[in-house]
Amino acid sequence: MKIKTAVVGASGYTGEELFRLLACHPKVELVGAYDICNFGKPVGEVHPNLRGIVDLKIAEPDYSRMGRQADVVFAATPHKVAMKFVPKLLDGKAKIIDLGADYRFDDVKVYEKYYGKHESPEIKGVYGLPELHRAKIKRARLVANPGCFPTAAILSLAPLVRRHLIDLDHIIIDAKTGTSGAGATLSEVTHHPMAGVNIRAYAATTHRHAPEINQELTKLAGRKVRAHFTPHLVPIVRGILSTAHVFMKKQISRGTLLKIYREFYSREPFVRVLDGLPEVNFVVGSNYCDIGIEVDQEGSEVRRLVGRKGEICIEVVQEGNRVVVVAAIDNLIKGASGQAIQNMNLMFGIDEMEGLRTPALRP
Amino acid sequence: MKIKTAVVGASGYTGEELFRLLACHPKVELVGAYDICNFGKPVGEVHPNLRGIVDLKIAEPDYSRMGRQADVVFAATPHKVAMKFVPKLLDGKAKIIDLGADYRFDDVKVYEKYYGKHESPEIKGVYGLPELHRAKIKRARLVANPGCFPTAAILSLAPLVRRHLIDLDHIIIDAKTGTSGAGATLSEVTHHPMAGVNIRAYAATTHRHAPEINQELTKLAGRKVRAHFTPHLVPIVRGILSTAHVFMKKQISRGTLLKIYREFYSREPFVRVLDGLPEVNFVVGSNYCDIGIEVDQEGSEVRRLVGRKGEICIEVVQEGNRVVVVAAIDNLIKGASGQAIQNMNLMFGIDEMEGLRTPALRP
Amino acid sequence: MKIKTAVVGASGYTGEELFRLLACHPKVELVGAYDICNFGKPVGEVHPNLRGIVDLKIAEPDYSRMGRQADVVFAATPHKVAMKFVPKLLDGKAKIIDLGADYRFDDVKVYEKYYGKHESPEIKGVYGLPELHRAKIKRARLVANPGCFPTAAILSLAPLVRRHLIDLDHIIIDAKTGTSGAGATLSEVTHHPMAGVNIRAYAATTHRHAPEINQELTKLAGRKVRAHFTPHLVPIVRGILSTAHVFMKKQISRGTLLKIYREFYSREPFVRVLDGLPEVNFVVGSNYCDIGIEVDQEGSEVRRLVGRKGEICIEVVQEGNRVVVVAAIDNLIKGASGQAIQNMNLMFGIDEMEGLRTPALRP
Amino acid sequence: MKIKTAVVGASGYTGEELFRLLACHPKVELVGAYDICNFGKPVGEVHPNLRGIVDLKIAEPDYSRMGRQADVVFAATPHKVAMKFVPKLLDGKAKIIDLGADYRFDDVKVYEKYYGKHESPEIKGVYGLPELHRAKIKRARLVANPGCFPTAAILSLAPLVRRHLIDLDHIIIDAKTGTSGAGATLSEVTHHPMAGVNIRAYAATTHRHAPEINQELTKLAGRKVRAHFTPHLVPIVRGILSTAHVFMKKQISRGTLLKIYREFYSREPFVRVLDGLPEVNFVVGSNYCDIGIEVDQEGSEVRRLVGRKGEICIEVVQEGNRVVVVAAIDNLIKGASGQAIQNMNLMFGIDEMEGLRTPALRP
Repeated sequence: MKIKTAVVGASGYTGEELFRLLACHPKVELVGAYDICNFGKPVGEVHPNLRGIVDLKIAEPDYSRMGRQADVVFAATPHKVAMKFVPKLLDGKAKIIDLGADYRFDDVKVYEKYYGKHESPEIKGVYGLPELHRAKIKRARLVANPGCFPTAAILSLAPLVRRHLIDLDHIIIDAKTGTSGAGATLSEVTHHPMAGVNIRAYAATTHRHAPEINQELTKLAGRKVRAHFTPHLVPIVRGILSTAHVFMKKQISRGTLLKIYREFYSREPFVRVLDGLPEVNFVVGSNYCDIGIEVDQEGSEVRRLVGRKGEICIEVVQEGNRVVVVAAIDNLIKGASGQAIQNMNLMFGIDEMEGLRTPALRP
Repeated sequence: MKIKTAVVGASGYTGEELFRLLACHPKVELVGAYDICNFGKPVGEVHPNLRGIVDLKIAEPDYSRMGRQADVVFAATPHKVAMKFVPKLLDGKAKIIDLGADYRFDDVKVYEKYYGKHESPEIKGVYGLPELHRAKIKRARLVANPGCFPTAAILSLAPLVRRHLIDLDHIIIDAKTGTSGAGATLSEVTHHPMAGVNIRAYAATTHRHAPEINQELTKLAGRKVRAHFTPHLVPIVRGILSTAHVFMKKQISRGTLLKIYREFYSREPFVRVLDGLPEVNFVVGSNYCDIGIEVDQEGSEVRRLVGRKGEICIEVVQEGNRVVVVAAIDNLIKGASGQAIQNMNLMFGIDEMEGLRTPALRP
Repeated sequence: MKIKTAVVGASGYTGEELFRLLACHPKVELVGAYDICNFGKPVGEVHPNLRGIVDLKIAEPDYSRMGRQADVVFAATPHKVAMKFVPKLLDGKAKIIDLGADYRFDDVKVYEKYYGKHESPEIKGVYGLPELHRAKIKRARLVANPGCFPTAAILSLAPLVRRHLIDLDHIIIDAKTGTSGAGATLSEVTHHPMAGVNIRAYAATTHRHAPEINQELTKLAGRKVRAHFTPHLVPIVRGILSTAHVFMKKQISRGTLLKIYREFYSREPFVRVLDGLPEVNFVVGSNYCDIGIEVDQEGSEVRRLVGRKGEICIEVVQEGNRVVVVAAIDNLIKGASGQAIQNMNLMFGIDEMEGLRTPALRP
Repeated sequence: MKIKTAVVGASGYTGEELFRLLACHPKVELVGAYDICNFGKPVGEVHPNLRGIVDLKIAEPDYSRMGRQADVVFAATPHKVAMKFVPKLLDGKAKIIDLGADYRFDDVKVYEKYYGKHESPEIKGVYGLPELHRAKIKRARLVANPGCFPTAAILSLAPLVRRHLIDLDHIIIDAKTGTSGAGATLSEVTHHPMAGVNIRAYAATTHRHAPEINQELTKLAGRKVRAHFTPHLVPIVRGILSTAHVFMKKQISRGTLLKIYREFYSREPFVRVLDGLPEVNFVVGSNYCDIGIEVDQEGSEVRRLVGRKGEICIEVVQEGNRVVVVAAIDNLIKGASGQAIQNMNLMFGIDEMEGLRTPALRP
């Protein structure tokens, strides 16, 4: 018996990515593609990579129909849209996975500060980061799939925060994303002549993924955390590299930290703790989150390492107190549609990796 | 009377960039091109963009000859090379501008920790950042041109550090560079199939530009500063975006900070303090360093701003204590050869902007 | 019973891609990874995207051992290497798929003109383009997997050539490739600072893929064909767009041509004949070859079409005699490792699409 | 006495590029910046690379005023706009350089076929390609600046066509352009997620630059020429590489062809005939058009050349009849605003290279 799936928001990038992944998922049947545009067009015409693969036609959203036909509905709609139709879907029987922000916040006031008025504040979703909330996700009717930056940032810091190893008042998360994170809507900043050979910071102190990161780090810490988050746009299409700069309360060696991370993620199928630092092309095209750690080094005993350009980098024995944690994900997979399918797998009790085993493209 | 200039290291990227800029400098005559390879080839054959523009032939370095023929010698050689020939040049009459690291450090022990043994430690250069050391540069015989990352990082933080406004123990500099910073030497990390759709951090806690940044911030602060520096490689060729995350000792509004920066750089021809944040394509192809500031905002009075993707970003009246300072430069111009020419202009008493007025290419 | 597979050339890009695809192939067991370097390292260490996915260790090539252990050996080695070990493998029982050029040519003199002396000229492979030679591939012991450019070029022209519709003396194939086609070996032209914002033609009239294209077009035409081939390097990592410019012997409408192409490829699982023109991102990450056709238009009846930038493009009813056929492939998949697996599937009598169903990544 | 210049279309990319270049032109004074948007904003606010360099404010177009204040008006407006205001400007005294297509065609019927109805068909401009029409440009009141693709294509073929060396019925021009050619107007095909790692052909047989190319080649040949033109979009921002594939009437060696080209362009300051093939980064940022030639080789005497990837390419002594001519330009400089300034220099009798001497950025 296959899981019957429907997608609302079939024309967007996360919609496309859901179809791309679900089409190869052995336990899934695609039963519905909905959007407020492109009516009557096959998915493979709107998304030419799916031509001959997904022939489902896009229909106008009909929530009672999709509630009957589907076991699970993916809401791949812009923020503030799912809040309008999720209440209708909850009248039916389908489970719901919302890829937008509408049900990510425990405190609706935080949501409203960053996104404006919520129309169904009484409905609560489970925050769909399996590495932190797997048990709840399995039982959930409504999963709120995390944002792309929060996925990378939270996974990069969770072990340190839960173990109370770092100064919670000086957490810096400096993230770099490809342009697909901005979605299919045209804008000057993602116009190729402006973005193609450029780097820019944006929403440097005000990005709405910051409160999402802080909500989860606060739960992990057991006290209020306010991490500082700044995203940058770089000229790749897919991929996020999230660099966290944190300060240890006391000196801990890199080896010990690696051990802590590996233990924390020992049973996670999609988190890989590396010996070195991850790069975007280790993960793009896959559902993996790769994590690496460096410790700022200080002291007197010096070994020399040869780096880029044949330069000598140094390594010392006694280790300092800044820690750099780098996490890499594909923003459309682990940062969106892949994680949504991971959540679906959990909600339906099947192998968590099903349909998500494709390794990253590299080169 | 034109300034007679010679370049040692004619085949590399900073050598090319010196020729490119000097060829259009109205007060300069190119008299010598030297390298340990490409003997007898015209510069315009090694660097095809300069074909028909620079016809000087590359010769084997002859330091006594260049000491006689040139008023100024640019050393565009790898680190640890200039230290071998600068003593010879000092026997002649030419002024010297070294684009490498050999004479950047006041304390030779710091140099030797990061670069290995120094062969002429008794010789001292003036650190060639005109915005901080203009008077000394004007009188200098030997200028040590700053590194690319330090140029952006120091300029982004100088006003805050000199005015003692920030917590000196929690300075994070997260920089992003194009690949030309790695030079012409082939390496796997700059092989296009590996670098072309990738982002990577490198030397995350050990980069040798960190001690250079710290030397200058320490002078500005009047006490020891140890900033934390992490560079990233992104798939552009030219340009650095340097993001500094710092914490204010007390709340200061963004408006006040902008005023402080504009006052600090009020007489600087190549530093522009922007109303918003700079992007790499504001400066690539030019000698400008563009700087912008955001202040982390906290409080209750909320105004809404529309951001990328039509999302609502927030702005508040009462302002918090993290400050993000972003600086953008062209790593080969303000970060190397353009700044070297700016230094030359100062050393010879001519208009500091001469030969450096070309605006950035955008788009 | 799974197909036991071994790969010689485990460190290169086509080796990596074989592992990436084979690891998800449900009917395959990976039994051997061989190379002349990286001995003892797990595949997932050399190719970090495969970490935790392919844990096989790389061993020094032992041909008698791999002949015993494997049902099929993939030779993902540089040209002129397979010719040395294929004779040894033929002593064993394993089937062989060579991704290099050594066994692609019917006439060894053509091979030797372009590649130098052949060391096992008596051995003949089947040219592994399933769309043209499926029956022979099924029975083959040794398959010579086509080059990347020939795959796209031949598929784009086969229907026209076999039906004798075009002037065989004026065939121009102008191809554009990403940099991964150049392989893992470092070179100045694929050094990111030189390649990252550049376009260049290379081997404009002498590329060794030309004789391979001509061999196959000659077979299709039944008379000697000498197509003119010029490749270009553009700053993407994966993907080929091959544009063929040909002249029709008599006027045929675009509709008729599309019908001819669709009929010709009607039973091909990996060739899609589009209504419009293909783009590289329709296929990158997949084994598809997408093909589109335009006919040069001349006449008097004009309809206006709006194009890029809102400009008006024209369309006319009466059609002219130049035809542009554009084909897009992923050079590492349909142009190399994916096609090799497609050939393997045929050689072992399993579903030709097995392990190759992942759609392209877009965006 | 400086030339007083005004720009209509100050907000677009060619407008920006005019300001960028004119700001450094020693014989020019900027007196007016006009557009139908951005009223009252300084040019340096709309184009942040020009901040502090061009402080002129953008005003609503007032043609009688600009006719009085300016010696020359640049129309950097979309096609079909200049035709509305050029008649008004001709009532004044200013010379006019139109960067759009409105006055490029000798035959208004050709214009109207590709662009729609012309509103001032009685007015004729001089086609502003200095290499072909210098004498007329010097005397012109109205210059029609060529399109970007025609500039590269015509210059690449002019010597062959004028000397009647090639088969005029089989001329293929396969061009590759960066995205800035599409201008500042947002569109899906230049949205970075769609364009950033992609290659696409467009208007493959119907591009409106084809009739412009054919008009000029026809004049050169003295008989009707219909070249076949297909453009491609590749992920760079600036630059065009135009590859012409043509067939010689009789065998001519590459050496002889190079001699013909060098003679033809012997007095041209901005055309460089190279020994090898040009690449986009030889010219981006400059007003140069670089041209290179290869001849298709056939025969028996073989010398081996080592190519990319260490492969052996061949070279033969007896030469064949296909010729590949590659031309590279910066589409916004020699393909638009730089050429417009070159025309201005000619129209005002000053040094043709004035303000255009900056060499290309490479790397």
